[in-house]
Amino acid sequence: MAAIVADTAYLQAMLDTEAALARAQTRAGLVPADHADAIVRACRASRFDIDELGRKAAAAGNPVVPLVEQLREAVGDAAAEHVHAGATSQDILDTATMLIARQALTAIVGDIDTAGDAAARLASGHRRTVMAGRTLLQQALPTTFGAKAAGWLSGLDDAAELLGSLRDRRLAVQLGGGAGTLASLHPHGPKVVALLAEELGLAASTVPWHTNRSRIGELAGALGVAAGALAKPARDVTLLAQAEVGEVREGVAGRGGSSAMPHKRNPVAAIATLANTAQVPGLVATVLAAAAGHEHERAAGGWHAEWHPLRELFVSVGSAAAWLGDCLVHLEVDPTRMRANIGADLEQYLEPAPFLASTGDIVTAAVRRHAARREGPSREDPA
Amino acid sequence: MAAIVADTAYLQAMLDTEAALARAQTRAGLVPADHADAIVRACRASRFDIDELGRKAAAAGNPVVPLVEQLREAVGDAAAEHVHAGATSQDILDTATMLIARQALTAIVGDIDTAGDAAARLASGHRRTVMAGRTLLQQALPTTFGAKAAGWLSGLDDAAELLGSLRDRRLAVQLGGGAGTLASLHPHGPKVVALLAEELGLAASTVPWHTNRSRIGELAGALGVAAGALAKPARDVTLLAQAEVGEVREGVAGRGGSSAMPHKRNPVAAIATLANTAQVPGLVATVLAAAAGHEHERAAGGWHAEWHPLRELFVSVGSAAAWLGDCLVHLEVDPTRMRANIGADLEQYLEPAPFLASTGDIVTAAVRRHAARREGPSREDPA
Amino acid sequence: MAAIVADTAYLQAMLDTEAALARAQTRAGLVPADHADAIVRACRASRFDIDELGRKAAAAGNPVVPLVEQLREAVGDAAAEHVHAGATSQDILDTATMLIARQALTAIVGDIDTAGDAAARLASGHRRTVMAGRTLLQQALPTTFGAKAAGWLSGLDDAAELLGSLRDRRLAVQLGGGAGTLASLHPHGPKVVALLAEELGLAASTVPWHTNRSRIGELAGALGVAAGALAKPARDVTLLAQAEVGEVREGVAGRGGSSAMPHKRNPVAAIATLANTAQVPGLVATVLAAAAGHEHERAAGGWHAEWHPLRELFVSVGSAAAWLGDCLVHLEVDPTRMRANIGADLEQYLEPAPFLASTGDIVTAAVRRHAARREGPSREDPA
Amino acid sequence: MAAIVADTAYLQAMLDTEAALARAQTRAGLVPADHADAIVRACRASRFDIDELGRKAAAAGNPVVPLVEQLREAVGDAAAEHVHAGATSQDILDTATMLIARQALTAIVGDIDTAGDAAARLASGHRRTVMAGRTLLQQALPTTFGAKAAGWLSGLDDAAELLGSLRDRRLAVQLGGGAGTLASLHPHGPKVVALLAEELGLAASTVPWHTNRSRIGELAGALGVAAGALAKPARDVTLLAQAEVGEVREGVAGRGGSSAMPHKRNPVAAIATLANTAQVPGLVATVLAAAAGHEHERAAGGWHAEWHPLRELFVSVGSAAAWLGDCLVHLEVDPTRMRANIGADLEQYLEPAPFLASTGDIVTAAVRRHAARREGPSREDPA
Repeated sequence: MAAIVADTAYLQAMLDTEAALARAQTRAGLVPADHADAIVRACRASRFDIDELGRKAAAAGNPVVPLVEQLREAVGDAAAEHVHAGATSQDILDTATMLIARQALTAIVGDIDTAGDAAARLASGHRRTVMAGRTLLQQALPTTFGAKAAGWLSGLDDAAELLGSLRDRRLAVQLGGGAGTLASLHPHGPKVVALLAEELGLAASTVPWHTNRSRIGELAGALGVAAGALAKPARDVTLLAQAEVGEVREGVAGRGGSSAMPHKRNPVAAIATLANTAQVPGLVATVLAAAAGHEHERAAGGWHAEWHPLRELFVSVGSAAAWLGDCLVHLEVDPTRMRANIGADLEQYLEPAPFLASTGDIVTAAVRRHAARREGPSREDPA
Repeated sequence: MAAIVADTAYLQAMLDTEAALARAQTRAGLVPADHADAIVRACRASRFDIDELGRKAAAAGNPVVPLVEQLREAVGDAAAEHVHAGATSQDILDTATMLIARQALTAIVGDIDTAGDAAARLASGHRRTVMAGRTLLQQALPTTFGAKAAGWLSGLDDAAELLGSLRDRRLAVQLGGGAGTLASLHPHGPKVVALLAEELGLAASTVPWHTNRSRIGELAGALGVAAGALAKPARDVTLLAQAEVGEVREGVAGRGGSSAMPHKRNPVAAIATLANTAQVPGLVATVLAAAAGHEHERAAGGWHAEWHPLRELFVSVGSAAAWLGDCLVHLEVDPTRMRANIGADLEQYLEPAPFLASTGDIVTAAVRRHAARREGPSREDPA
Repeated sequence: MAAIVADTAYLQAMLDTEAALARAQTRAGLVPADHADAIVRACRASRFDIDELGRKAAAAGNPVVPLVEQLREAVGDAAAEHVHAGATSQDILDTATMLIARQALTAIVGDIDTAGDAAARLASGHRRTVMAGRTLLQQALPTTFGAKAAGWLSGLDDAAELLGSLRDRRLAVQLGGGAGTLASLHPHGPKVVALLAEELGLAASTVPWHTNRSRIGELAGALGVAAGALAKPARDVTLLAQAEVGEVREGVAGRGGSSAMPHKRNPVAAIATLANTAQVPGLVATVLAAAAGHEHERAAGGWHAEWHPLRELFVSVGSAAAWLGDCLVHLEVDPTRMRANIGADLEQYLEPAPFLASTGDIVTAAVRRHAARREGPSREDPA
Repeated sequence: MAAIVADTAYLQAMLDTEAALARAQTRAGLVPADHADAIVRACRASRFDIDELGRKAAAAGNPVVPLVEQLREAVGDAAAEHVHAGATSQDILDTATMLIARQALTAIVGDIDTAGDAAARLASGHRRTVMAGRTLLQQALPTTFGAKAAGWLSGLDDAAELLGSLRDRRLAVQLGGGAGTLASLHPHGPKVVALLAEELGLAASTVPWHTNRSRIGELAGALGVAAGALAKPARDVTLLAQAEVGEVREGVAGRGGSSAMPHKRNPVAAIATLANTAQVPGLVATVLAAAAGHEHERAAGGWHAEWHPLRELFVSVGSAAAWLGDCLVHLEVDPTRMRANIGADLEQYLEPAPFLASTGDIVTAAVRRHAARREGPSREDPA
């Protein structure tokens, strides 16, 4: 995830957008093909000095201003006028953000699915592993570890579905020009928008969304939901791994030691999941709050305030998903201890045990849904 | 909105759930029809002492415990055993929350649509009203007030669509019993879930979602997106209404006076919109954070922490939507001042004025989408 | 706490401010004594129709506009000109908020101290009660329950000290008039500010703080710190009360039952504490974010956005403090179970047991500090 | 600020803590001087491979575990047993965080003071520069630009004072050992704590604060208050710099250009200030929320969740302070435009103009306080 949201990845995504814009305008008959070719050739991140761009970005207020300047120099005088034609800084940066979002969401969904696969295996494998069901941290009624894992799976599938759906439906190119009017491309604006979208495999939006941040807000909200779905199993693992409970333990040898207490085996992956998901609600609030500050045709601060928390959201949720996958894939379950921990108050419910059959239905439903989703229509990154 | 989320409304929604549960079990052949009838008859909020329930709820940890007790007394000994059969407190409260959410979302979507209708009228009516486009609070390039209103409209339609879609797809009954196993209804659990869903016009969920709070998180996230869409036009109105700009003013006479400065006319509705939407990001964060704390089969605090912010979200977003509708419906626009404010730097772009045609396309697109959505398949509350 | 922050309490606090303003101006020689007396007599909340004020407040944008109107009517023509003289709506509402804050902080500090007293008793009484020290939810090294309670106490004393100090140092009158210039009181402005402060027992601020929200932000931040200090013991109680741990239980009979599982005894007070403290971080964020939106001489939304979350903060932290006091005062501790739970890995540290002496020092330090604070200079509400 | 909170800075701060711990134990007679010397000599960040530490930290759950391992290797067998003696990972990381906090706060206070100095100059220099006072974004009554700048200054001084006071009073060493009992240092624990505090110039805390996060919460809250104080002048600058208002402009040539609109001069520094401060409320909420999750003697996630947002807070507030200083130091003020913008409704208040004298008093009070604070007892970093 660090690589997907690295400065160079953003730079390349901005260059990809400039390149696609040139190609789209060639297809629309606005830019000679050889000029577009020159632009496309120049749009390689390795040709740019990212530190210098950063310094100039601070003075300009955003990184696109110096990038366009250097890109124009790189393509030569003839093609220079077609670089960035009809676009404004926010067009490039918003579209680049959508490209980054597509990669990040694909990676995150992949990691959530890894965790989900593990949860599905745990659910199926422990369909008849009896344990205490606990509510308000008190023993309540018996359940199975399979049912617990099915509950985890259900949340993970909700999250993967939501993120996958957003990725496939809501990522769109941004193209509006200086004040979002598409004036300088007139009358070709809508056509260039459509071709740019086609070039990049994103949706087209006839109405520029410079100051309508619904897409960004939905993205943040969905990452917030995913964080909750990732945190839930991690929280349960830390509780089940307590010495006094001892029903699961993280299965990676040599991990989780202590600087002062060598006998300890800390649930490091679950804890790392929780530490990452804990970052998310505040970041979502920051993104949502920024949406209110998009004054007039482009924000004086509200737009700029989105960049960092969005990147942080990808990193936090991505890291959490990777850690939870690691945790669940290696989770060691102790059915004997689970049975032994069941308190006297619950014994009456163990024979007969209708919960075994009823939770079996729950496990089946959750696992089938997961399997269907995993084998469903490909959601691979179309780019 | 205050009425929709009032204590009595929650009480009635809990009673509606208990009544529907009894009816569903009758249809499943588990409860004699006359007992279900007795339960249904007793499920009227006016028969209960809400203050006493509140006091007992504090001792029990939730309001369902004393409610069920009183309901059992009310129906007489014979039917008492069928009250709340197979259910746990969270089943009732979560389902009731979904019923409240349906009403609240319908009201909010209605108020957003009122604001959207007004924005659509402004967009169409001012399709050729030239004004300065402003980015980073500086004059950038000319645009039209129609295009600005089309941008507002676009955000409002995104929000209404998102909330309407959630309402129609994601509100589900909760039924799992004590530890979410459906054991005490076995083997009729899934059937009762389906019938309960039918009774209440909600979706069925085979896997109980006691600790999978995706539905709640999506709801909160969507309300967060809506808050941003509502705040954006309100922010613009406050800026356009500045004395030095003077391009719009709120059109309700006698409103917005000052205790010390009688000459003032404050944009009260826009300000109230902003004050309400400002509550939202923090509340969304609270709901999302709570999702991480749903330990085991039911949370020790995380669930309880959701109730209040969810209600507050409905109130804040609902109030904001009502205020923005009021603001936009009565907005007075001053095209002469808009034209006069255009600075010298922008004059060069006024003749010829491709932006007039290109923003016309944007207005058309936004208004058509709004009209299509408004005339689309009915999204009325199915209950 | 509900009473302290009720609408009528805010109304009375606004009236107290108007009354004190009249008295202060009489002392400054600006208002005849009999007119001030008439104003003071009229400033009783019971004389006002709070619902009507609410409706008119919506139209005016704040409640002070209609309040002043009605107050002027109530005092008669002669005194009417001296009502609200030199003040603006924000002066009255901000000062009233400070008066409410003083009462709320006093109540909250009182409830934190009740919890602290109980923690101190637990710390002293269990100074030699050996139990497992747990880190990352794993058994780490032995400690004592006294040391754990001393840790709780330390956080509670930090919180009480911080809130008490803010109450005594940072609550100030607001008086600046229409644009915060004190012009209409010139040259008596600073003197009236000082006298108003004296009348109300608040600090004076020569520089109006209409748009400098440090006081409000510090208040919110301190309440956020208090929420953390209250949540920590509650979290520990829920964990220690787990059936598999069983080292404490809440001691109020007949509380914490379940609608489906009569054998359960849920730690209701600890859970209510956690549900309340969970509201706080998001509310603090809302208050802090509002501070950035205080444009020019008075905010268009940012100020209005503060009112609700501040009140909610008082209620959430106040409720949490009351619930935690209840929890700790009645906490039942099981030293036998604590000893029995200590795992084999920790046995080596039990004989000799330097931790008994070293944690004894910690207990002593924490309890002494608490006692000193409790017997220190009176922090009673000076009004 | 990036350097102050860089990974290497944290590494060095951890090493400084280990070195000071060795020296403190030598002074307490627990460690031979030559062994402490060996440890001190080894504690140089440049001797460690920070990437490798990072990888091993992920496996161990925190960076101290591998650091201590490598440090022990570096000092040789004889001194190895005295490395990290009596300490636990959290002791080192929390103390290191305090060292970083001291440097970060000193830098932030310095930058706030630079902004404050500029605000004080603006206040004094424009003591009689008449302009429209604006409330709710409407012209209200006349004021002076001096009074406005005095209001900014007042907030900046509040923030600097609060942060400086926290730095001087609330930064403390952490030393408790494995379960916070100080057992392995018994009976020298309190003495070693005191000596360690002396070595590092931090406060001593007899009661370990592993799970009492008041210090961290207060720090976050104070940074949140500072963000509000920094955002307020930045917001005003963006509003005053609007073309239609034109009363100020950022004075750095060649900055704030647009990729599409060369005539623009965007208030880049003010916007960067706002983009940075907008990050803060969400981060404060994250830190405060983490405090509730410090289970038992050390958190399973709650502690780990603090590290990142605390660092982000330093960066965001530090960057905002630097940008605002830049903005205010170079601010160009246009008194003629200010006078010209005053609307007809306000003319009646201009002659006579008591506000000139009354705001003069406000300016004097704010500037005097600033001067006194700047010349007050040195608050320099004592280390």
